[in-house]
Amino acid sequence: MSVAKEFESANAKYAASFTKGDLQLPPQRKVAVVACMDARLDTARALGLEEGDAHVIRNAGGRVTDALRSIIISQQLLGTREIVIVHHTGCGMLTFTDEVIRNKVRSDLKQNVDHIAFLPFNNLEQSVLDDIQLLKESNLVLDVPITGYVYQVETGKIVKVGESK
Amino acid sequence: MSVAKEFESANAKYAASFTKGDLQLPPQRKVAVVACMDARLDTARALGLEEGDAHVIRNAGGRVTDALRSIIISQQLLGTREIVIVHHTGCGMLTFTDEVIRNKVRSDLKQNVDHIAFLPFNNLEQSVLDDIQLLKESNLVLDVPITGYVYQVETGKIVKVGESK
Repeated sequence: MSVAKEFESANAKYAASFTKGDLQLPPQRKVAVVACMDARLDTARALGLEEGDAHVIRNAGGRVTDALRSIIISQQLLGTREIVIVHHTGCGMLTFTDEVIRNKVRSDLKQNVDHIAFLPFNNLEQSVLDDIQLLKESNLVLDVPITGYVYQVETGKIVKVGESK
Repeated sequence: MSVAKEFESANAKYAASFTKGDLQLPPQRKVAVVACMDARLDTARALGLEEGDAHVIRNAGGRVTDALRSIIISQQLLGTREIVIVHHTGCGMLTFTDEVIRNKVRSDLKQNVDHIAFLPFNNLEQSVLDDIQLLKESNLVLDVPITGYVYQVETGKIVKVGESK
């Protein structure tokens, strides 16, 4: 059975007891979370998010470079005024380089992806600090509080790495 | 109080009863979900995801164009072999055009973002079908099952719009 079919079954149960059909479009807590796509991180459970609370932007590594379009929309059209960045221990982005994945795609898919920056990193804490700095310096991002965390996949804890108020 | 501080409090409770510290990096159910960042959509609860199950890629609209870097990493380095796309009713992406947001950024931030495609759409079902097709035709994406849904923010239900097997 496809995982999609399993999702349909699980969703039927979710919808059966759903009581949040009147939530508004703009995030109630006026925050945008930028987090890694990692399977072990459940952003809602780990941060205490309920439906309607926050924009959740996720990509490989939780890199803000790749989240800029979404952040601009979140702030300019939907009123969020705080950003929280969450990277995590054991991240896949610590395990490769642009060269490694470009060579793999060239070898396995016969495609040239030298034009894609895959945004890996070799220092976890620094990757969070770099992303805070990048947002702080961007002319396209409002001057809002930004806080960056490392989520520990071993303990479920978030540890603050840096902030910009 | 910043929302980040509230996240820290909520996370302390989550971590206090955390029992999933030994999960593996590759997603156990070998699926990547591409969904909108919308606050009303809790991808884990709505699809029955547990920690460790699936990559969750989220951005404004749940557009695959903006998820390509993450999908390549997910498939090439972390073994996912199915993709599920989730857009939703009442999406903010239905409410504006590139011209509208480019003009707003020019007016409010004094910045030119004519180089950014914000990826809005005016037909919800078609946006899902377009994204399935885009992945299907991409030489950078493996030939895997792709299923596209519309999540109804009014009912909590996902409704299948299309698939590519």
